[in-house]
Amino acid sequence: MSGQTVKNIALSSDGSAVRIIDQTLLPGRLEYIELRDREAMYEAIKSLRIRGAPAIGIFAAYGIYVLAQSYGRGEFFARLDDDCGYLISCRPTAVNLSRQVERQRALAHAMAGSPIAEIVQALGREARAIHEEDVAMCRAIAEAGLGLLHPGDTVLTHCNAGPLATSEYGTGLGPLLLAAERGVDIRAYVDETRPLLQGARLTAWELMNAGVDCTLICDNMAALAMREGRVQAVLAGCDRMAANGDAANKIGTSGAAIIAKHYGVPVYILLPSSTIDLDRPTGAGIPIELRDGEEIRSLWYEKPMAPEGVKCWDPAFDVTDHDLITAIVTEKGVIRPPYDVNLKKLFG
Amino acid sequence: MSGQTVKNIALSSDGSAVRIIDQTLLPGRLEYIELRDREAMYEAIKSLRIRGAPAIGIFAAYGIYVLAQSYGRGEFFARLDDDCGYLISCRPTAVNLSRQVERQRALAHAMAGSPIAEIVQALGREARAIHEEDVAMCRAIAEAGLGLLHPGDTVLTHCNAGPLATSEYGTGLGPLLLAAERGVDIRAYVDETRPLLQGARLTAWELMNAGVDCTLICDNMAALAMREGRVQAVLAGCDRMAANGDAANKIGTSGAAIIAKHYGVPVYILLPSSTIDLDRPTGAGIPIELRDGEEIRSLWYEKPMAPEGVKCWDPAFDVTDHDLITAIVTEKGVIRPPYDVNLKKLFG
Repeated sequence: MSGQTVKNIALSSDGSAVRIIDQTLLPGRLEYIELRDREAMYEAIKSLRIRGAPAIGIFAAYGIYVLAQSYGRGEFFARLDDDCGYLISCRPTAVNLSRQVERQRALAHAMAGSPIAEIVQALGREARAIHEEDVAMCRAIAEAGLGLLHPGDTVLTHCNAGPLATSEYGTGLGPLLLAAERGVDIRAYVDETRPLLQGARLTAWELMNAGVDCTLICDNMAALAMREGRVQAVLAGCDRMAANGDAANKIGTSGAAIIAKHYGVPVYILLPSSTIDLDRPTGAGIPIELRDGEEIRSLWYEKPMAPEGVKCWDPAFDVTDHDLITAIVTEKGVIRPPYDVNLKKLFG
Repeated sequence: MSGQTVKNIALSSDGSAVRIIDQTLLPGRLEYIELRDREAMYEAIKSLRIRGAPAIGIFAAYGIYVLAQSYGRGEFFARLDDDCGYLISCRPTAVNLSRQVERQRALAHAMAGSPIAEIVQALGREARAIHEEDVAMCRAIAEAGLGLLHPGDTVLTHCNAGPLATSEYGTGLGPLLLAAERGVDIRAYVDETRPLLQGARLTAWELMNAGVDCTLICDNMAALAMREGRVQAVLAGCDRMAANGDAANKIGTSGAAIIAKHYGVPVYILLPSSTIDLDRPTGAGIPIELRDGEEIRSLWYEKPMAPEGVKCWDPAFDVTDHDLITAIVTEKGVIRPPYDVNLKKLFG
């Protein structure tokens, strides 16, 4: 199996549900689930059955299409607005979620005079368009990112920014998957990415499936790997980028970037431009989701690994300062500093 | 219970075994085990039932005393030398293990003309002396370390350098325990410390027992905690320090120190001078123990969390460069750079 054959988001055959891989069961079990109501969709995002900023956006776009099929004539826009707000509230850090949901909502409102059936049909077309745009973007990002690497390089990955998090090639993992496809020798150290272990569970699984030589490490081993010259670049995705290039991504990304800077290892952030939030001047105001710290103490374990009643602090994201980022890679290619100027020029 | 009441190493009541807390069962269960033969002692160190550089040294000193009780007259020194080499080979990074075992071996050889019973008795006295020296040292380290902190400070801890790793106050945790005893408000963020979770299992347990306000985090969250100004100092122990101040300690210490330097947070390494290896000019040659990577994939978990057959890299220690260390704290007080000069002056 190669990375591209993973179809992590699709409509069910009759179009009445969104069909996804339940990523919480990986790597032990590859199982698909179908979601029809908004509570199940919200839970799937919250529990990370579906995850990755672009994937959540695509999922929610299909979700709005599925939900809209059951709205009656008189209630259509009230229910649409309510469902959009409900889904957006689920994960405040990822900009794609609100962006794609708002795109669906705006489309429907713009067709306010049309028959309901036509609006629903248009929402379905729009969800597929959002999905196809993402496929094309990921391919372009992978191509541009691979241009930054050299045969024989080993990269460090954090969290999961592969096909499971997007579509097709992914963002952060795209260059690795493309290299494998072309027989170019690029290897990876994979941060396990506590506490949800997306690196261990998902990235290692995707890279092994694609035939990429990868080695799993604990997050706290990256500094020694860099000290010993084992890593030539850090590749990461992004959940929301501010106008100055500050990048919110999975907790631990900023630490890896600081350590990379210390050892002179370049840091590349790969993302579709839909993840860039030009209305936000810096990363300072990006909302950071705080999760229930009990997952640090007991999730995945046979028994809790810390004393009962211990306080935990469990931020899901952090912000990597733009001056730690060597280059940003989007579907439009490689962007170098100064990011405030260059991002605005390309996407403003 | 206060931190000091933990008696993690002692002789059994009849003196024929070493009695320790099985630290692998914490925090769920507080259970003591007694070790009589060398294989059980080796296994206890290897499996981290007993851990922490000073504690391993004390444990092995008692261990040699226990083992020597069964040596016959003709075989005494052959078996002693063999057992010493065997125990030392267990954990190559921690200098205290070889130092205290060699101290016992040298004592016995120096008494070569004496009756066996007298030599054995002397080994028992020496083990107790090593233990008592450690108690006095830890108290002095805690006192000096507390002088570097200010009421209201929050520190970051990595791994476990508390009473369980030493005796009484510990090293890295000593200032926190002493502060709690005196009612001084010093709080802690506790790195869980993958993959063996000494922070979650042991440090959180010791700090909560001592009444220190502590918050457990994943190792990769320390960067965000520092970025948000939540941490005023990093405190860590040390398994072996080179003559220039380079400090080998639990994997992840160097990453935390690099991030601390980036954010201007001071890094304090607390250790008994027995951990300083003046024969080693820099940290470059300190042997780094590589453990079986399967523990990254499956230890503690209900089911393995990474794909079957995934490669893992599992170094147990890393080296923090001396220029990342703000001050070194030993039983002789606070030592500032240049460490190569000042360590030699005090301990050369």
